[in-house]
Amino acid sequence: MKIPSINPERFLEDFNALAQIGATGDGGVNRPAFSEAHLAARKWFGERAAEAGLEVQVDGAGNHSAILRQPGASKSLLLGSHLDSVPNGGHFDGALGVVSALEVLRTIEETGLELPVNLEAIDFTDEESSLIQFMGSYALLGLLTPAILRSPHGGRAALLEGLSHAGLTEDGLLSSRRNPDTIAGYLELHIEQGPKLESAGMQIGIVTGIVGISSFRISFYGRADHSGTTPMEARADAGLGASSFVIASREIVMNQFPDCVANVGNMEFRPGVFNVVPKQVDVSLEIRSMDCERLNALKSALMDQAQHDAEQFDLDLEVLTLGGSEPASMSSRAQTAIRSSAEALGLRHMSISSGAGHDAQLLSRITSTGMIFVPSIGGVSHSPVEFTEWEDCVNGAKVLLGAALHLVEQE
Amino acid sequence: MKIPSINPERFLEDFNALAQIGATGDGGVNRPAFSEAHLAARKWFGERAAEAGLEVQVDGAGNHSAILRQPGASKSLLLGSHLDSVPNGGHFDGALGVVSALEVLRTIEETGLELPVNLEAIDFTDEESSLIQFMGSYALLGLLTPAILRSPHGGRAALLEGLSHAGLTEDGLLSSRRNPDTIAGYLELHIEQGPKLESAGMQIGIVTGIVGISSFRISFYGRADHSGTTPMEARADAGLGASSFVIASREIVMNQFPDCVANVGNMEFRPGVFNVVPKQVDVSLEIRSMDCERLNALKSALMDQAQHDAEQFDLDLEVLTLGGSEPASMSSRAQTAIRSSAEALGLRHMSISSGAGHDAQLLSRITSTGMIFVPSIGGVSHSPVEFTEWEDCVNGAKVLLGAALHLVEQE
Repeated sequence: MKIPSINPERFLEDFNALAQIGATGDGGVNRPAFSEAHLAARKWFGERAAEAGLEVQVDGAGNHSAILRQPGASKSLLLGSHLDSVPNGGHFDGALGVVSALEVLRTIEETGLELPVNLEAIDFTDEESSLIQFMGSYALLGLLTPAILRSPHGGRAALLEGLSHAGLTEDGLLSSRRNPDTIAGYLELHIEQGPKLESAGMQIGIVTGIVGISSFRISFYGRADHSGTTPMEARADAGLGASSFVIASREIVMNQFPDCVANVGNMEFRPGVFNVVPKQVDVSLEIRSMDCERLNALKSALMDQAQHDAEQFDLDLEVLTLGGSEPASMSSRAQTAIRSSAEALGLRHMSISSGAGHDAQLLSRITSTGMIFVPSIGGVSHSPVEFTEWEDCVNGAKVLLGAALHLVEQE
Repeated sequence: MKIPSINPERFLEDFNALAQIGATGDGGVNRPAFSEAHLAARKWFGERAAEAGLEVQVDGAGNHSAILRQPGASKSLLLGSHLDSVPNGGHFDGALGVVSALEVLRTIEETGLELPVNLEAIDFTDEESSLIQFMGSYALLGLLTPAILRSPHGGRAALLEGLSHAGLTEDGLLSSRRNPDTIAGYLELHIEQGPKLESAGMQIGIVTGIVGISSFRISFYGRADHSGTTPMEARADAGLGASSFVIASREIVMNQFPDCVANVGNMEFRPGVFNVVPKQVDVSLEIRSMDCERLNALKSALMDQAQHDAEQFDLDLEVLTLGGSEPASMSSRAQTAIRSSAEALGLRHMSISSGAGHDAQLLSRITSTGMIFVPSIGGVSHSPVEFTEWEDCVNGAKVLLGAALHLVEQE
């Protein structure tokens, strides 16, 4: 099969236009799910797809699709990623995968190539979990429940406000399941967000699997006392338990779980004022591992540590498991398709695991799923200075196109 | 001189009515300066004073006064405290001093006693420093400046909103100075907010001096990285510096500065989400000492520690001194008046220093100033469970009345 080539100028023009939406002026973008900027990016995507003559669909979870229909096809091969960002994040994460998917569809549309399946460029809702982690792909799998909607990551009020802002409803979220038999596979191009490809001098990463993640809210409870009149030794200061846990949890991960990572991304103090001893501190903890058993072992070790820290400072402890995801394997069919595509283009490639979560980990439960990584300079991501060389982005889009055609050939 | 007696029933009725304003349902009140509840409490105070036939005045800083005028008097003896509370604080702190001052004025008014000075029950603005620490007494001394108003404790936007809410202006704040020659003295009844009186079995504390306070915002700056793909050892996690500082600063105070106290009342993480390594953590630190040199020595030791913590975790550091107050001595005249009053009533009393800041520390710069403490059960304060036996509150009000008359006798 002769593989057609994408249009790098058009691809760049779109990529740059998207980077302006929600731009923070320091090279980054601020597009949390359902923010003004996020909704503007989705609108832009729909318009660009429509201009290209693609069919545009939005499902009940807000997932945006541009579809290149094939006569008589009953299945769709999905290519995509997400247009939302972490607060003050970079302009490659997610965006590259959506814009490259759009470019692949336009390229194939122009060649007039007839395929046995539809091609669909998809932008999933809230990959970065401002409200519910992987909201869009969870909805597509039919895995959202009323219970999940009652206690979202970002708070119930924020969820309702966001849905209303985006013109969505809870009923829509709960009824967006797609029949897996209509899905031929899923491919996602993404920046690595880590340093391995750059260090190894590789151009393409073929993802073998995606890390499992668990997140928790760990609340330390003490007593609100006057900060001037209460002797130091008579205090039950929730900040001490929380701070001690932050330091100790890092030691545990580095010394006993070097194959895992952990992050305390936030602490919230109550009442949070200068002259009152903190009576409550809520710690936002996230842990990741490629292995389910190790993830559970790390969780146990950290919960024991939190209990120890609470007792040491005369505090009470409450742990809320907020959510997470199991480690996921990419399909060998998809990995083979990506490898064949990279080799046909003469690109240096390696197998790699993903330390970040992606919608692909959910799609992998129902369809043949693969991910393509391109190098992140310095491994930096979720930051305005996140950067990937444009040549690597183009390579990634070319590999995506080739891999899609390789996968489709087997239908 | 025969000392008249206050009306304990009326005093209790007022105290309970005030405790309902901003009540949080758990025994506490939530009346931060310029909140709805705080303004309602001030309105209530003005109405109760007017009902008693007292003259009501509000100055440009929002300080509320009830005045019992004496024919020909050119000076006023101030009795008072504050009606604002910390967020979710107790219903004794501040309130006791204002309600008892009102009761003292009513009692003296009823006796028809002629005094050489006016008596003024005063409620100072923002003692608890939601916006500017001791805003009201600073304004009365003429010590507020445009620079202070530009960077208030609670943020510029909150200050402007609060002033607007209360019908006040910055010009008003800056022009509320009172001529010290018109002030005959200042007496304040307050709960101890510490455990010393209760432990010693004393009924009345005669305050000798008030602690000096310094507050700081200590910012640790790292780098926002993806929490899944960035190896633990490659991170610049601002939360580690901040947490390490919290633990170490407590050790420093307890081991090297047992005569001082410190509090980290808040930490703010940025961007503050689960999946991004914190790039910035702002730590709210407050330190207190009865001795100016010790306060400075503690400050130096803690700033050295913060620098050490920043370096240890590859972070940058920025320290902003937010404000504070020098240690203050109570006048011997006022202490003598309080002691005479307590002895005449046969109450067990002791001299005591104040670990909490009070408006009295500012008034002490311009006039003969004294404070009366009554016992706090368990030493608890700035909390809904803050409690003082009603009998002790009545004793305090009686001592306040007696001390006021003793001070006035010398005019």
